[in-house]
Amino acid sequence: MKVLVVGANGQIGKQFVTFIQDSEKLEARAMIRQIEQGLFFEKLGAETAVVDLEDDVDAIAKAAKGVDAIVFTAGSGPNTGKDKTIMIDLDGAVKTIEAAKAAGVKRFIMISSFDTTRKAIQESPSSFAPYVIAKHYADEWLRDTDLDYTIIHPGLLTNDQGTGKVNAAPTVDRGEVPREDIAKVIVATLENDSTIGKEFQVVAGNDPVDEAVRSL
Amino acid sequence: MKVLVVGANGQIGKQFVTFIQDSEKLEARAMIRQIEQGLFFEKLGAETAVVDLEDDVDAIAKAAKGVDAIVFTAGSGPNTGKDKTIMIDLDGAVKTIEAAKAAGVKRFIMISSFDTTRKAIQESPSSFAPYVIAKHYADEWLRDTDLDYTIIHPGLLTNDQGTGKVNAAPTVDRGEVPREDIAKVIVATLENDSTIGKEFQVVAGNDPVDEAVRSL
Repeated sequence: MKVLVVGANGQIGKQFVTFIQDSEKLEARAMIRQIEQGLFFEKLGAETAVVDLEDDVDAIAKAAKGVDAIVFTAGSGPNTGKDKTIMIDLDGAVKTIEAAKAAGVKRFIMISSFDTTRKAIQESPSSFAPYVIAKHYADEWLRDTDLDYTIIHPGLLTNDQGTGKVNAAPTVDRGEVPREDIAKVIVATLENDSTIGKEFQVVAGNDPVDEAVRSL
Repeated sequence: MKVLVVGANGQIGKQFVTFIQDSEKLEARAMIRQIEQGLFFEKLGAETAVVDLEDDVDAIAKAAKGVDAIVFTAGSGPNTGKDKTIMIDLDGAVKTIEAAKAAGVKRFIMISSFDTTRKAIQESPSSFAPYVIAKHYADEWLRDTDLDYTIIHPGLLTNDQGTGKVNAAPTVDRGEVPREDIAKVIVATLENDSTIGKEFQVVAGNDPVDEAVRSL
């Protein structure tokens, strides 16, 4: 199963590609913005595709050609201008969804934000609201497709070492979760088709990742 | 016919309220952000409702209660932070659409941007793209409803005195158009139910506004 990783050079993306290049069932095609970012992935034996999320749907569809699944884990990050939030977190996500359709890729895993409901938008501090709004509309766009989607809503991401154990359910109490464990959750999601059409929140917890994902 | 004007204190909004308070068939309820903005509208004999577009759907729905139509002509403007683009031009518009549904108001006139297609997004300079993206998703959200909508796509807005004459069609050549004429186009749109379910671009031209709108 070949997986296009959009946002491969991000913190979750890099760990995820590392995991799946180690696995027997999955292999990655890393979508990166700059050719210099490719070395990391080539060393892992992963394919790369150089596409900017500000490019058009056709460019992304070309990168998606022949893969079996797409994982969207790109984010504009806190260090870019506020205008990038709408361009990457919303429009970049929607263009990737449209590219999946165009390339005939049915399986789509969205790494969303912990809570992207209308209520969460209204309760967000105004500095954070634009990000929640962007993720809200990207999630809505995906729900409205015929793709085999799963939407993962991680808690507050940390760089702590993963424990391999999480608490995953449609709604869980807010909490932290290591990026490494989210990368493992994505792998388990791809390996369990029972997650198709579902979405879930995930924080650090007591259940082994595979068991947590299988029992969703 | 009572019309809730969202963005009443904007340049188009003020002219539009002035026109319809002069007409016999239409009357305005001006939705404004600050109570001090109300004096202008009270002098015209228009009702006011004080609601911030960053408030929730319920607050907007309350302002929309009992009106026959909603005109969305709010915009974050060029002098606010980039984060306001997604909060007002996209999320403020969508919340107003949801408020129309909640309040049972079927008729909805959206003042959009000249070209909000995916192609226009890709061709926009990156300083302008966030605005086009916001308007694109707001228009898409409206098209996907059962509301009796009309989407007006004005050319480059000027403060020139209106001529009462325009060129309006699904697509026209790019050009300028006085805000005063757009205000007249909104009036004509409300008076012509043949515009329901349609959208059109409008620039300065040779056809009297009412004739141009009736023949769409």
